[in-house]
Amino acid sequence: MGVNLKPLGSRVVVEPIEEEEVTAGGIVLPETAKEKPQKGKVLSVGPGDRDESGKRIPLDVSVGDTVLFAKYAGTEVKVEGKKLLILRESDILAIIESK
Amino acid sequence: MGVNLKPLGSRVVVEPIEEEEVTAGGIVLPETAKEKPQKGKVLSVGPGDRDESGKRIPLDVSVGDTVLFAKYAGTEVKVEGKKLLILRESDILAIIESK
Amino acid sequence: MGVNLKPLGSRVVVEPIEEEEVTAGGIVLPETAKEKPQKGKVLSVGPGDRDESGKRIPLDVSVGDTVLFAKYAGTEVKVEGKKLLILRESDILAIIESK
Amino acid sequence: MGVNLKPLGSRVVVEPIEEEEVTAGGIVLPETAKEKPQKGKVLSVGPGDRDESGKRIPLDVSVGDTVLFAKYAGTEVKVEGKKLLILRESDILAIIESK
Amino acid sequence: MGVNLKPLGSRVVVEPIEEEEVTAGGIVLPETAKEKPQKGKVLSVGPGDRDESGKRIPLDVSVGDTVLFAKYAGTEVKVEGKKLLILRESDILAIIESK
Amino acid sequence: MGVNLKPLGSRVVVEPIEEEEVTAGGIVLPETAKEKPQKGKVLSVGPGDRDESGKRIPLDVSVGDTVLFAKYAGTEVKVEGKKLLILRESDILAIIESK
Amino acid sequence: MGVNLKPLGSRVVVEPIEEEEVTAGGIVLPETAKEKPQKGKVLSVGPGDRDESGKRIPLDVSVGDTVLFAKYAGTEVKVEGKKLLILRESDILAIIESK
Repeated sequence: MGVNLKPLGSRVVVEPIEEEEVTAGGIVLPETAKEKPQKGKVLSVGPGDRDESGKRIPLDVSVGDTVLFAKYAGTEVKVEGKKLLILRESDILAIIESK
Repeated sequence: MGVNLKPLGSRVVVEPIEEEEVTAGGIVLPETAKEKPQKGKVLSVGPGDRDESGKRIPLDVSVGDTVLFAKYAGTEVKVEGKKLLILRESDILAIIESK
Repeated sequence: MGVNLKPLGSRVVVEPIEEEEVTAGGIVLPETAKEKPQKGKVLSVGPGDRDESGKRIPLDVSVGDTVLFAKYAGTEVKVEGKKLLILRESDILAIIESK
Repeated sequence: MGVNLKPLGSRVVVEPIEEEEVTAGGIVLPETAKEKPQKGKVLSVGPGDRDESGKRIPLDVSVGDTVLFAKYAGTEVKVEGKKLLILRESDILAIIESK
Repeated sequence: MGVNLKPLGSRVVVEPIEEEEVTAGGIVLPETAKEKPQKGKVLSVGPGDRDESGKRIPLDVSVGDTVLFAKYAGTEVKVEGKKLLILRESDILAIIESK
Repeated sequence: MGVNLKPLGSRVVVEPIEEEEVTAGGIVLPETAKEKPQKGKVLSVGPGDRDESGKRIPLDVSVGDTVLFAKYAGTEVKVEGKKLLILRESDILAIIESK
Repeated sequence: MGVNLKPLGSRVVVEPIEEEEVTAGGIVLPETAKEKPQKGKVLSVGPGDRDESGKRIPLDVSVGDTVLFAKYAGTEVKVEGKKLLILRESDILAIIESK
């Protein structure tokens, strides 16, 4: 029997995708003070926050989406050995699609 | 005669579930600066905050739910020897379900 | 002739109930950085804040309730030798009931 | 010819009532870090702030009320030799009534 | 040809009235840390901010009013040699009337 | 072929008018800590922010107006050698008119 | 197979246009403390944030627009070797048009 995380409100559970920070040719140094985002896969999504009249606002990301999010956003949680992140949808910058 | 806590607004009373922070093989060191959440069981839930028209917004967690919440959230209170936490629902990240 | 405090808005007047902080066996040290709440009895309640249309939102606590509130919340006032607190209802965490 | 202060919005003009801070038996030391309120008499009240539809929200305090307010709230002004305070009504904690 | 200042939104143009800070008998020292207000005459008033439906909320002060305002509020501007202040109406505490 | 700046929302493009800070007789020292405004000419105006129902709120300043604004407000941009400023309308204090 | 970034809410993906900071004649030193904006080309735009009734507020910038934005705004991301920025539309100051 496994465990399932049901995020509340506009939160999503994301499994981070670690990427090589060192390129073939050597070390990559950050060029600017700008925050670097991180990639991840959406594992589950909350029901959405409620609007003023009490109706849910559905999320724009879906289970299975690959997303970019701010690197230090959210809360880290270990579920069955996997390191997951619980983020608010507002911490997600973009969905990465193949074209 | 016992004592019962009736949380106000969108607050919930949670009994924390302490987990081993040391694994079989040794000490677990935090890998990142990200906040680690804590598990707990929901003992009672408030009636919900009121929306603009004065109606209650019911909570999304129920008595008996196992929840994840930010470790340093809420207010600690001792009731009949048990250490409980009074949290706002917004401090709860996710409900943990068996699947 | 005595004096009566009529709190404004969503404020309540509470008489704190001092509790032993030292147990039979010795000194109780705070285990965590979490804020410890304090108990008190509600002596009077305000008429409630007004909602957007000007109607009063009635309070959820009533005169006579025993309540838990954040220890450093509110404003202390001495009335006829008694030390009272004027709190906003939002500083009250829960109502303590006998079961 | 005297001078009259007409406070704007939800402001009130209050004449502070100085109270003995030293009791018969000696010096009173503040026991906690909690803010001590101050007493005063309401001399004039503003017309109230406007709600979203432009209507005035009338104040809950009236001219002549004895009120408790946060000690360092408001703006001090000297009018004809008298030291007065202009406060927002939200700085007033309670009305003191004789019972 | 002179110059006229037309303040935007809820702003007003005020000509400060300097008052003697030293009394007949000597120097007046500020007794408390409370902010002292300053007097001024209203020279022009803005059309008012817009409410949610786009309608202007007219100001409560009029050209010619003598007003009290927080001493360090607003922006100083020199127009034809006169030192004026552009304030938001919310920085005005009260209108001073003769009675 | 020239370049045109189309400001977004409630922003305006202003060309600053530099004024002598040194008077005939010598150096002008700021008398108070109050912020000194700067003059400028409005070159273009945005379409306005949207209100809650999605309608644009038109700006109160027009192309050609001479305006006063807070000296350190906005973002400086060089267009074809001219130093311009992109400001929010809320940074504009008043329109300067000839009378 | 390439990769496509679909920004969420009111975010846009922008490809920065680097400009010479050194002029023909020598080094350009910033004259004031004012923030300098940066130019870029809009590659993709989000669906817009939702208003109170849940409807999307469409963005004012379109794919292909050349825009000015605050230099340190947004989050830098590398996609297929190109350095891109994900910005909120509110960080965009103006659209640059040829006239």
